[in-house]
Amino acid sequence: MPADTLCWADIEAAQARLAGRIHRTPVLSSAALDAASGARLFFKCENFQKTGAFKARGAGNAVFALADAVARRGVATHSSGNHGAALARAAQLRRIPAHVVMPEGTARVKAEAVARYGATITWCAPTLAAREATVREVLTATGATLVHPYNDYAVMAGQGTAAVELLQQVPDLDAVICPVGGGGLISGTAVAARHLRPGIGLFGAEPAGADDAARSLHSGVLQRCEKPQTIADGLRGALGDRTYPVIREQVADILTVSEESIIAAMRTLWQVLKIVAEPSGAVPLAALLMPPAALRGKRIGVIVSGGNVDLDSLPF
Amino acid sequence: MPADTLCWADIEAAQARLAGRIHRTPVLSSAALDAASGARLFFKCENFQKTGAFKARGAGNAVFALADAVARRGVATHSSGNHGAALARAAQLRRIPAHVVMPEGTARVKAEAVARYGATITWCAPTLAAREATVREVLTATGATLVHPYNDYAVMAGQGTAAVELLQQVPDLDAVICPVGGGGLISGTAVAARHLRPGIGLFGAEPAGADDAARSLHSGVLQRCEKPQTIADGLRGALGDRTYPVIREQVADILTVSEESIIAAMRTLWQVLKIVAEPSGAVPLAALLMPPAALRGKRIGVIVSGGNVDLDSLPF
Repeated sequence: MPADTLCWADIEAAQARLAGRIHRTPVLSSAALDAASGARLFFKCENFQKTGAFKARGAGNAVFALADAVARRGVATHSSGNHGAALARAAQLRRIPAHVVMPEGTARVKAEAVARYGATITWCAPTLAAREATVREVLTATGATLVHPYNDYAVMAGQGTAAVELLQQVPDLDAVICPVGGGGLISGTAVAARHLRPGIGLFGAEPAGADDAARSLHSGVLQRCEKPQTIADGLRGALGDRTYPVIREQVADILTVSEESIIAAMRTLWQVLKIVAEPSGAVPLAALLMPPAALRGKRIGVIVSGGNVDLDSLPF
Repeated sequence: MPADTLCWADIEAAQARLAGRIHRTPVLSSAALDAASGARLFFKCENFQKTGAFKARGAGNAVFALADAVARRGVATHSSGNHGAALARAAQLRRIPAHVVMPEGTARVKAEAVARYGATITWCAPTLAAREATVREVLTATGATLVHPYNDYAVMAGQGTAAVELLQQVPDLDAVICPVGGGGLISGTAVAARHLRPGIGLFGAEPAGADDAARSLHSGVLQRCEKPQTIADGLRGALGDRTYPVIREQVADILTVSEESIIAAMRTLWQVLKIVAEPSGAVPLAALLMPPAALRGKRIGVIVSGGNVDLDSLPF
């Protein structure tokens, strides 16, 4: 029976469960970006992950952790983004039904990705209240299990497996930095990295226009962001009651960055590192192009969270 | 004393010489692209190579193979593209002078890359005659050694090291396909791959608007393309008298593709594989999206040759 927090054993179990079901993504580096940041940067390219984002890890772990009798009734979530596609893919792999509630107005390319993996889409009004009410209806009607995008220990554990691979690929890191939305990636990353390398520094990066995690960490009290305003659509979520305590305990700092710096960092990843990263995935590099003193000259693992963008409407 | 052809021993020596001086680039795959091609594709991402293209291998091998007394007088080439930057970088690593003759009208971003690595640029009129005359003047004035972009055994051997890595990363390939311009990459690839896996099929891919290699292979006589017309600027070169014999002997076929299919394949690499590839690097995928019968269902290594593009003028 799992304790009510995220443990290394959960991440180890996730590793085993995900083996052969996801990509082991490569780590890239660039002398030009090292020079620009004044540090040694190692980019863990989760934009190359199945479904184009690290979300395939957490959703995959949650789906494959279910007991057969429970799994048979399916899984459900509400998501306008990468978690919906990741859950749909995991359910397809396990041959169980997936239900994804999507707010009207979701980018067509994202709905197509969910549909391509065979999930049933239920549309709702574009408010949090409507999303939650609609997903409750779906759960009642189908008996499906809710897989929350981040406030779920199995999801958090799955996300932590990226850091396990990263530390196998580059063992001697001084720090790891990843983007922060709802906190699933950073909480899994923190528990994994600090187990494998206890002295490592854990950093988050967040848009200034959606800085609930930075304010929560700095004040010691869980804060909300009423109207998140950022191009980094993956980072608009608010911390949850399962992710926040892990962050409070394990994360050294959360750095905030401007919209301009996110767009510039995204362009730099494309131009210099030759990878297609979405705005959320460029947020850590935005922070590292003006690094705080604690990170200067260090060997830093940088998790590039995803690469799902519409090539017809680039921000640069 | 090397024989007057390209041998496995040259490629083995290049491997040793390049160790620690270039990236070991990752291999990516995509279930969606496998489905689209009806084959299993393994993309060797030389767009992530130092200087953004496989050219760092050949230029690096040529520069580090020089005897000290010769190297001291520097190296020179004429190039409007990736070879110029690769030679400049290799010379900078060896701390010797590099001279790059560039035709007026070369994209500023390419000249900047050459200058960033400390090479001396000599501008000339944009004709082959002017380029050759100018480089001869540079050679006479400086005593530098000419490093041709492809018609040079040390360069060809260096390019072959990408296939050595690819076959270490994915040993059980049925075929390898790479783009063909002057033939440096495909000749090195052929000798390396067929030494390591004698039964492997070697394929080239070429724009229909610059199809001298396909016509040479099919006719058995070295052909020229008078006015190559293609967006794939890396593939406008004509085969040389050192690359053509290797191709004639070792390459199963050279497939030609339309401009439209190159642009579509480039977009697919960005959208689906999440990598920034230049038009030349997308030419093999363009061929594989309508594969010949010989390649259907096979395990195919695909060399993505480079990723140097101007993000401000994308063709899609």
